[in-house]
Amino acid sequence: MSAEIICVGTELLLGDILNGNAQYLARELADLGIPHYYQTVVGDNPARIQRAIDIAIERGAQILIFTGGLGPTPDDLTIATIADHFNAPLHERPDIIADIEAKYRQRDRVMNPSNRKQALIPAGADVLPNPVGTAPGILWQPIDNLSILTFPGVPAEMRAMWTQTGVPYLKSLGWGDQVLVSEMLKFWGISESVLAERVGDLFNSENPTVAPYANYGEVKLRVAARATSEAEGRALIDPIAAQLKQLGYPHYYGSDDTTLAAVVGQALRDRGQTLAVAESCTGGGLGHLLTEVPGSSAYFWGGIVSYDNTVKINVLGVDRDDLMTQGAVSEVVARQMAAGVRDRLGTDWGLSITGIAGPGGGTEDKPVGLVYLGLASPDGTTTSQELRLGDTRGREWVRRVSAYSAIDLLRQTLA
Amino acid sequence: MSAEIICVGTELLLGDILNGNAQYLARELADLGIPHYYQTVVGDNPARIQRAIDIAIERGAQILIFTGGLGPTPDDLTIATIADHFNAPLHERPDIIADIEAKYRQRDRVMNPSNRKQALIPAGADVLPNPVGTAPGILWQPIDNLSILTFPGVPAEMRAMWTQTGVPYLKSLGWGDQVLVSEMLKFWGISESVLAERVGDLFNSENPTVAPYANYGEVKLRVAARATSEAEGRALIDPIAAQLKQLGYPHYYGSDDTTLAAVVGQALRDRGQTLAVAESCTGGGLGHLLTEVPGSSAYFWGGIVSYDNTVKINVLGVDRDDLMTQGAVSEVVARQMAAGVRDRLGTDWGLSITGIAGPGGGTEDKPVGLVYLGLASPDGTTTSQELRLGDTRGREWVRRVSAYSAIDLLRQTLA
Repeated sequence: MSAEIICVGTELLLGDILNGNAQYLARELADLGIPHYYQTVVGDNPARIQRAIDIAIERGAQILIFTGGLGPTPDDLTIATIADHFNAPLHERPDIIADIEAKYRQRDRVMNPSNRKQALIPAGADVLPNPVGTAPGILWQPIDNLSILTFPGVPAEMRAMWTQTGVPYLKSLGWGDQVLVSEMLKFWGISESVLAERVGDLFNSENPTVAPYANYGEVKLRVAARATSEAEGRALIDPIAAQLKQLGYPHYYGSDDTTLAAVVGQALRDRGQTLAVAESCTGGGLGHLLTEVPGSSAYFWGGIVSYDNTVKINVLGVDRDDLMTQGAVSEVVARQMAAGVRDRLGTDWGLSITGIAGPGGGTEDKPVGLVYLGLASPDGTTTSQELRLGDTRGREWVRRVSAYSAIDLLRQTLA
Repeated sequence: MSAEIICVGTELLLGDILNGNAQYLARELADLGIPHYYQTVVGDNPARIQRAIDIAIERGAQILIFTGGLGPTPDDLTIATIADHFNAPLHERPDIIADIEAKYRQRDRVMNPSNRKQALIPAGADVLPNPVGTAPGILWQPIDNLSILTFPGVPAEMRAMWTQTGVPYLKSLGWGDQVLVSEMLKFWGISESVLAERVGDLFNSENPTVAPYANYGEVKLRVAARATSEAEGRALIDPIAAQLKQLGYPHYYGSDDTTLAAVVGQALRDRGQTLAVAESCTGGGLGHLLTEVPGSSAYFWGGIVSYDNTVKINVLGVDRDDLMTQGAVSEVVARQMAAGVRDRLGTDWGLSITGIAGPGGGTEDKPVGLVYLGLASPDGTTTSQELRLGDTRGREWVRRVSAYSAIDLLRQTLA
């Protein structure tokens, strides 16, 4: 009892395009609660498409979802190949011809003869209408316990057809009566392996399941439950999610679409406070992240990018002697940068980053990846935090993790 | 004689992540001239991974490239499953343990016990070193005419391992004896359809081929030739590339890994000049892009993020009356921001951005997507440029295109 996705297109095998259709359909199947264990990508080649169909059926698939190969050019062979596989003749459907002709007329053009092949449908199959483009798909049960749906490769067409016809069709067959309810918990400042140890046996939980994801220093845990209703799913998820949030304390910061910048923004709004940033190694990346949040102008007043030491001294007011004796990448300079930007811009909070992003500029004492964060508080006191991010993951990794870590420092302080 | 890509990860089947690794590897295989007819995605499930291996071998694959499932958590099973498939015992490799411990030490941390499983390698396999993260892969010929390479799912790690070890290994086995020589020409400030009209019949060229790509306002043309040597390939490419660069004038700015920021950086270095930026709607994104270039501190001195109007007036010296009568998003304010940051930071050039990124904040007169760029030159004069980017593609698109356009304004001025 499962579905397989078969994406047809030599351009996928050449790496010319990213397979966003597979991700979209995978998420949709998960949301419908339809199990899905394999995806296949195959070129515009009838023999190989036939083989992919054989394999999917052998693996027990009861739904085959095809994308790609429905266009008017000679290399678009998906439907003809499927018809051939089940020995069904192709019939030209006059209603499809009329629909394509109407779409061309709408654009003041005449149907191209090559479009005629898009009207060929296997005997016994239904048309899966395309409200966006010219290429329709098919809905077909060629044998017992097997449903086939075909979609064009163009994402906007595929999505419209999936939503308008594909999903209702699958539901009419009795699929998708279960829902998958999930929550993605997000953590900052804890490694995947440390979090995994804290989580321990919960990874073996079956409904809900708990699965880890890590990317760019962020760790996530996805809690997902199958249920017959959203409410039942939430009831399964909530106690586990609550437990995981506690286990990840104080690193859990939000779920699903929440970002660190949005959490900090809400905390500042709640307090009616304002923020300014002083950045060296991130070059503006911290301000950029904070202003990804729409409406951030309510609490984020701006910043000073002090890449050159003269800017640290003249604009931020960092002490020249401290800069010379301690170096630009030091705790004292991070604190003075934070205090300086808070003072200069007149905000409640000042947040700073100074560090060595690499690849050059490191010394034995101060290696690439050494970063100091500084925070100046409304009462005028300053604190700092040292990060040692290493030199193996590259300049952009150091810059990105530094910026997120700075936001997290403020988040934990505000919490 | 072909390769197959097998991507392992339940997160792919749930649609949680986009399979960029498959696209990257597909393009690399195409560049090496290694045939590749199928890709499979399978979950973190030993029985299903076993079956995917069986199928790939039955289909005649001689190279199996795995991504994903090399991490420290219990659901990371790729290498253990492959070893099991070929009845090879796993051995703990002390050199891997030492490498992981060293990486942890560099970050002032201690290796987690869960990382030990990443040191388990099938008897007879070689280690595929990971210069970036902790998870190594394997290189293995478990039976005649079959090579297995495994990579982590983290893209930066996979790519570094592929380039440094995977490609040389495949070449040492005699694969990739034809070369695909290519040049990716990059353009800014011209639409794909306008450039396509200029290119015309060159799109029908067969060796080299010319193919267009568009993303985030940038348009690229890939010129690629198959040949028996790099030199022969270059000789095929060069005349076509030269023609395309002329057709795209003045929008062509560089090829392959060149970025707009690097081109501007080199031009500033050549002149011995310095740059500062003043940003409103991009919030630091312009400085962040400029400092993606290693060594940018030689010419980039810093910037002022003037999100709030008080910062525009008090720190940048924008005229309060002009700000009130013309508005923060206006030509005059853009020019004054550029002049102000040039003056305040003491650089040769000042570059500014002020605009409405949305989703809120637009009016009939000044809609979302209206952006002004300002440029202050070494002689003290200022110029400006208006962009109308619309509201359909979202806040991040407006911010990103604004930042690139500002850099391109300076590039064309310096050229």
